[in-house]
Amino acid sequence: MTTRPHVVIVGAGFGGVEAARALSRRPVDITIVDANNHHCFQPLLYQVATASLSPADIAWPIRGIFRHRRNVSVVLGRVTGVDRAARTVQTDFGAIAYDYLILATGATHFYFGHPEWEAFAPGLKRIEDATRIRRQILLAFERAEISTDEQQRRRLMTFAIVGGGPTGAEMAGAIAEIAMHTLKSDFRRIDPRRSRILLIEAGPRILGALPTALSDYARKSLERIGVEVRTNAMVTACDANRVVLGDERIEAATVIWAAGVAASPAAAWLGAEHDRAGRVKVAPDLSVPGSPKIFAIGDTAAVDTAGQPVPGIAPAAKQMGQYAARVIAAAVEGGVKPAPFRYRHYGNFATIGRRAAIADFGRFSMQGTTAWMLWCIAHIYFLIGARNRLMVALTWIWNYATLKRGALLITRG
Amino acid sequence: MTTRPHVVIVGAGFGGVEAARALSRRPVDITIVDANNHHCFQPLLYQVATASLSPADIAWPIRGIFRHRRNVSVVLGRVTGVDRAARTVQTDFGAIAYDYLILATGATHFYFGHPEWEAFAPGLKRIEDATRIRRQILLAFERAEISTDEQQRRRLMTFAIVGGGPTGAEMAGAIAEIAMHTLKSDFRRIDPRRSRILLIEAGPRILGALPTALSDYARKSLERIGVEVRTNAMVTACDANRVVLGDERIEAATVIWAAGVAASPAAAWLGAEHDRAGRVKVAPDLSVPGSPKIFAIGDTAAVDTAGQPVPGIAPAAKQMGQYAARVIAAAVEGGVKPAPFRYRHYGNFATIGRRAAIADFGRFSMQGTTAWMLWCIAHIYFLIGARNRLMVALTWIWNYATLKRGALLITRG
Repeated sequence: MTTRPHVVIVGAGFGGVEAARALSRRPVDITIVDANNHHCFQPLLYQVATASLSPADIAWPIRGIFRHRRNVSVVLGRVTGVDRAARTVQTDFGAIAYDYLILATGATHFYFGHPEWEAFAPGLKRIEDATRIRRQILLAFERAEISTDEQQRRRLMTFAIVGGGPTGAEMAGAIAEIAMHTLKSDFRRIDPRRSRILLIEAGPRILGALPTALSDYARKSLERIGVEVRTNAMVTACDANRVVLGDERIEAATVIWAAGVAASPAAAWLGAEHDRAGRVKVAPDLSVPGSPKIFAIGDTAAVDTAGQPVPGIAPAAKQMGQYAARVIAAAVEGGVKPAPFRYRHYGNFATIGRRAAIADFGRFSMQGTTAWMLWCIAHIYFLIGARNRLMVALTWIWNYATLKRGALLITRG
Repeated sequence: MTTRPHVVIVGAGFGGVEAARALSRRPVDITIVDANNHHCFQPLLYQVATASLSPADIAWPIRGIFRHRRNVSVVLGRVTGVDRAARTVQTDFGAIAYDYLILATGATHFYFGHPEWEAFAPGLKRIEDATRIRRQILLAFERAEISTDEQQRRRLMTFAIVGGGPTGAEMAGAIAEIAMHTLKSDFRRIDPRRSRILLIEAGPRILGALPTALSDYARKSLERIGVEVRTNAMVTACDANRVVLGDERIEAATVIWAAGVAASPAAAWLGAEHDRAGRVKVAPDLSVPGSPKIFAIGDTAAVDTAGQPVPGIAPAAKQMGQYAARVIAAAVEGGVKPAPFRYRHYGNFATIGRRAAIADFGRFSMQGTTAWMLWCIAHIYFLIGARNRLMVALTWIWNYATLKRGALLITRG
């Protein structure tokens, strides 16, 4: 056992879990290091932030995934660096030696060079971000209810979401649903339906990665449920009470950040070349130049296929994880080295609200109820574990039928 | 509307919610003040602490309960005092005037005059306590897995529960189930089945409120699943790494407090007479002596019926809430004042683990599978809301069938 090559995988997101799964049937020992004990299904994180789902519905213990793969060890710890010469990963509890290393550490939000905005405009990457945003949204209504100052009340009932990608659009749609439906009879002094919800996008249209027709549909769907969509609007300042777009100050007690991506510090650990977002520029086999046994995958890696940058979405991370596993397996078992990594794009999805979603599969696209049902089915299918699938499906049916939300919970941090 | 008497209810636990429900159909205006936005079903809190249920499964937004009772307002705020002369309740956002006041502020744990122990030995009263304890239990196993020191590893795998009442017994049983079943295949260096779980009780037997035969059954059931039951054992010291019982030091990284009850500071707000646990000594109509329009109910009140103190359990709090509502309704509507409060005891319940529970109904009692099924049904029946009932029932069926737990989640505080 001890003579088998040791593969260390840092990060148990989509890429890391997929790599570990693929390698677990090969003659290697695997150690997964993650700062959390769970794999988080990020595409549904906004539903935790908007009180539809509970954290446990979209999080799965990493140990549970690999319970019966005896060559996989899971370690809860924080990686602080990589020593390429010594072939060790530094962690907060000591060094771990590796033969092969896969860095799948994901991304955080980029605040356009203003890291101080993060304190006022939380992003949505982890379970704790989601419960923090949920608390902030629900507390805003609670404080508005007891406020005696009309200006403060308006500020508390204004929600600004920065970034018109899928996460921003989904957040805006879900907050509108909370204000217009879920909470509409819950207060006595305020009318939640008078809330102002803004989706702010710097580019000329929201969902810029999708065809224009779908963008337009999304915009109209959001506007119909009460979201103000502001395109060509660049955030120039932000604090606890407002967001500033050039000359315009919007008083808003809740600002949520869904714009800009910054890779984790993996490139800094390696001293490797990286792009502007901090992603490691990897070789065509996803290895780090100069270190053929170190791989960067998912949001940690910058790689083009067919002249196009690979997008930072879950299917891309999974494909990279599977590919890195194949390269390592070939090296360990003496097989033929796979051809360079090639990303296969299946499609883009975004949901806006009840019976409103868009799906783009390149050759054809769809919108409305069919796209929404497909979105629901696909997301349930990709969840890990029968229990989570059942619970999320039931919760969605209940939410749909009652317009209620089951997790309207303010918990202290 | 504004001339209707204003009833302020502080606390949305079992007593407060029941009083508000009963009064909401009377010609009064009601304001409920609570520091949390949710009513928490405390009897199942230990299942959140031991990763079976999610917080949202046992918490229900207070606003949701009273959504369609237009004379009920809910306010999220912390009460800091009562001005009997001015008839106002002081809160962190201003004063609220009342005509009638119901104090239903519940209890916290009592650390036998050692409040400094609370930092090392959390109690279980709120949702946040439960997620804190869950984190601590799961982190202990994670740290043991990476520990290289045998003594430290043993300490991390020792769990001491102080207090052999229903909560202590249920916690001990659930932690044993996690160690012996749920996590048994999850680690590579430690064997969770070698954990040491102690239930420490100062009195001569656990579940002292129940008949001796049931106590004995509970003790044997706990011992069979691996819990060390220590009776006649008084905690004399406690810190982050150990609990001391007289001459014996038990090295334990996790100490959970389920002993001793201290009432909330309501008696201090009123300057009213109270018992040793801090509960207001109320009149036979549950009013505070000298203030016939102020009532204390549930764990806030000390009251005897038929020469016996009323126990601090959910049914007693509910009965007191209903009674206080009847007294107020009679005063407002000019009806006949009800006879003095009389507590009706239906029974005592405790569960130990799979198919092991005890139930005592005075005239007869039961134990084992039947009692366990009755316990499950009763707890689902008393949950608020169809969604919570369905989700908890499904989760229990799934837990029972798979021996897994769905919420093995470490989230940061």
